[in-house]
Amino acid sequence: MLKTEIDYDEMLSVLGRRLQPNAIRKLTTLLGNREVISLAAGAPSFETFPIEELAEISARVIRERGRFALQYGPTRGQSALVEAVVANLRSRGIEGSNPSQIVMTTGSQQGLDLIARVILDPGDIALVELPSYIGGIIALHNSAAQLVGVRQDDGGIVISDLREKIDRLYSEGRRIKCIYTIPNFQNPSGVTLAAERRNELIAIADEHDLLIVEDDAYFDLSFNEDAFRLIPLAALCPDRVVYLGTYSKVLAPGLRTAWLRAPEKLAAKIELAKEGADLSSSVLDQAIVIEAIREGLIERRLPELCKFYQVRCDAMLEALDRFAPAGSRWTKPAGGFFILMELGVGTDATALLPDAIDGGVAYVRGQPFFVDGSGANTLRLAYSRETPTAIADGVERMCRVFQNARAQAKS
Amino acid sequence: MLKTEIDYDEMLSVLGRRLQPNAIRKLTTLLGNREVISLAAGAPSFETFPIEELAEISARVIRERGRFALQYGPTRGQSALVEAVVANLRSRGIEGSNPSQIVMTTGSQQGLDLIARVILDPGDIALVELPSYIGGIIALHNSAAQLVGVRQDDGGIVISDLREKIDRLYSEGRRIKCIYTIPNFQNPSGVTLAAERRNELIAIADEHDLLIVEDDAYFDLSFNEDAFRLIPLAALCPDRVVYLGTYSKVLAPGLRTAWLRAPEKLAAKIELAKEGADLSSSVLDQAIVIEAIREGLIERRLPELCKFYQVRCDAMLEALDRFAPAGSRWTKPAGGFFILMELGVGTDATALLPDAIDGGVAYVRGQPFFVDGSGANTLRLAYSRETPTAIADGVERMCRVFQNARAQAKS
Repeated sequence: MLKTEIDYDEMLSVLGRRLQPNAIRKLTTLLGNREVISLAAGAPSFETFPIEELAEISARVIRERGRFALQYGPTRGQSALVEAVVANLRSRGIEGSNPSQIVMTTGSQQGLDLIARVILDPGDIALVELPSYIGGIIALHNSAAQLVGVRQDDGGIVISDLREKIDRLYSEGRRIKCIYTIPNFQNPSGVTLAAERRNELIAIADEHDLLIVEDDAYFDLSFNEDAFRLIPLAALCPDRVVYLGTYSKVLAPGLRTAWLRAPEKLAAKIELAKEGADLSSSVLDQAIVIEAIREGLIERRLPELCKFYQVRCDAMLEALDRFAPAGSRWTKPAGGFFILMELGVGTDATALLPDAIDGGVAYVRGQPFFVDGSGANTLRLAYSRETPTAIADGVERMCRVFQNARAQAKS
Repeated sequence: MLKTEIDYDEMLSVLGRRLQPNAIRKLTTLLGNREVISLAAGAPSFETFPIEELAEISARVIRERGRFALQYGPTRGQSALVEAVVANLRSRGIEGSNPSQIVMTTGSQQGLDLIARVILDPGDIALVELPSYIGGIIALHNSAAQLVGVRQDDGGIVISDLREKIDRLYSEGRRIKCIYTIPNFQNPSGVTLAAERRNELIAIADEHDLLIVEDDAYFDLSFNEDAFRLIPLAALCPDRVVYLGTYSKVLAPGLRTAWLRAPEKLAAKIELAKEGADLSSSVLDQAIVIEAIREGLIERRLPELCKFYQVRCDAMLEALDRFAPAGSRWTKPAGGFFILMELGVGTDATALLPDAIDGGVAYVRGQPFFVDGSGANTLRLAYSRETPTAIADGVERMCRVFQNARAQAKS
């Protein structure tokens, strides 16, 4: 069965990866009718797309540079865009980068996939955060890696747990290849890796010769622009980190334009893997992004974009404060799209989802994000899609379902 | 070293995969200056891109449907485009297709890669034509398959050689998974699989339970539209064939929009592999292609497009008739972009390439297309890039180099 256009991504994320066709059809109808407030979809709001500007740019790029923008392009990406990425890296504190370290990718998803294909042999261990981004988990899984989870708290990866896991794996004779981390405003937890832990993480990677895969998709979407600079791990230790960034969140994900920076030799291998994978990403998309950067369309809109999501985040946090059942807790993101909510121990977020959807609200159950199978009492809430009013309404509906479940459990 | 924008694909194809940096720099300069006539690049001519129409379509699609065209899309592809592919399959004689068999891909290159990832275990045998498309070879190779070549003549795959190779492999206890074929106007040979051999090929695949991977990138570019219908293998045996088509040759390759049709269960696995590989192909590119199809922009231009390449093919064939050294032979394509030239036994097309470039013409050495290491005396000539006059000029320059080499060898 082909999933219908608007809801595929959403459905997958709502109910997790094992869906019954009937459940899909029902959910498609509900979401299509907009009867359900979606706190599930993790995509940027279409309200943030600079539609008129991109329409004008695309037509101009094709008219003026169509013989290049419509032709095959280099596997590494358009050189002007690669240069723009180098400048962007510099502005993030990652100095001394050069074009031979950059590969443009079809979304960061492709970057994760190519890295996995290049570095992992079947059975190798990849360490991932508990919870972690499902797309990253799938990419690592598709290269037949074995995934081992490391606990997070409100400061991100718990360093003592990381040490314990590594020691245990080595004592079992396993080969650990990499640590996959989303250090800022993580998907799905919303937490940010604390500054002092960044240095500790690198020290551990150095000690055991591990590659760090740093997925910084949400870097630009910080709510505290003056508060502190988030120093990428790649700025602290460029030789040990593959660093991924994307234009999906700050411009438009349909353009499928992202990038990675890797040590030069690794970047060359990734380039070869990409050549076999798709020859190149969309050349037109890249040409459009180049023009958007040149015209300052991304830079100029960032403060407004951060504000846009911050208002929605605040609406969600306020509603949670007001309506959440006793015994539940949730993260307080400093940027990005997501809050992770933890219900009382023993409460099953998956079991309650059908009731929530009947009650007019959708969320993502948390368990699929936890590679160790934990997280049954967690759920991911996205504030990126709905308006602040709908978010407050949705949280109220959802919490009513949770309250009812608590009342029934007690009775 | 990052390859420069215009020449990456060309350079790779000109000198094969092991290039010295100095050779690259020299070639880049030469080709960049247009001092060299390129019979190497296998891309469509930019003169065939409907630039004004695509500029108008892209702006309109973003303005009218930007909230979808700029957003994440379904992994399988935009549903309207999937429906258009089903209709296209019907027009090619592949009846009874439905959307659940279709996956849109980032160029056919991604289709080949996903198929390889889904069906091949390390060490499995994939049978390929001698010669075959390098991108297909890379995709199969990247899934750790072992490639075994099957001879071709002017009618495509030599059936007796196919039988012999299969028997030998089975006697060695090997597992054969698939046959990869480009049945029409093959890249790099230009030959077309004869009608009667299509049935024989399917009978053999049936007998040994092999999957046929049918890469029909050049289907629409036939020079003999009324002469005969090329019946796809997928029309003869849809349950055993993965069939790949693309909009790269008939619209614009920079849009990176292609498709595959596979038996339903296999398509579902390919979809999951694609989800991990890039979530989806460019949504904007797909939206543009949908509109181009709706407006008849592809269909309408096909006769003119075929004529465009036929004139260039004729120019190359005439020049070869006139200038080619005795003892050489070449294929006579009935469509597509390519002619394979075979020099006298013992002549090394790789060794002569630097002289050819000094003489102002570039071609692709044939050997990398032969997975058994043969083909040292062959070269691929593309007539897709240069004007008929430049093609004639280029062939003359090239043949002068070959004549000189012959004269020197004799003296």
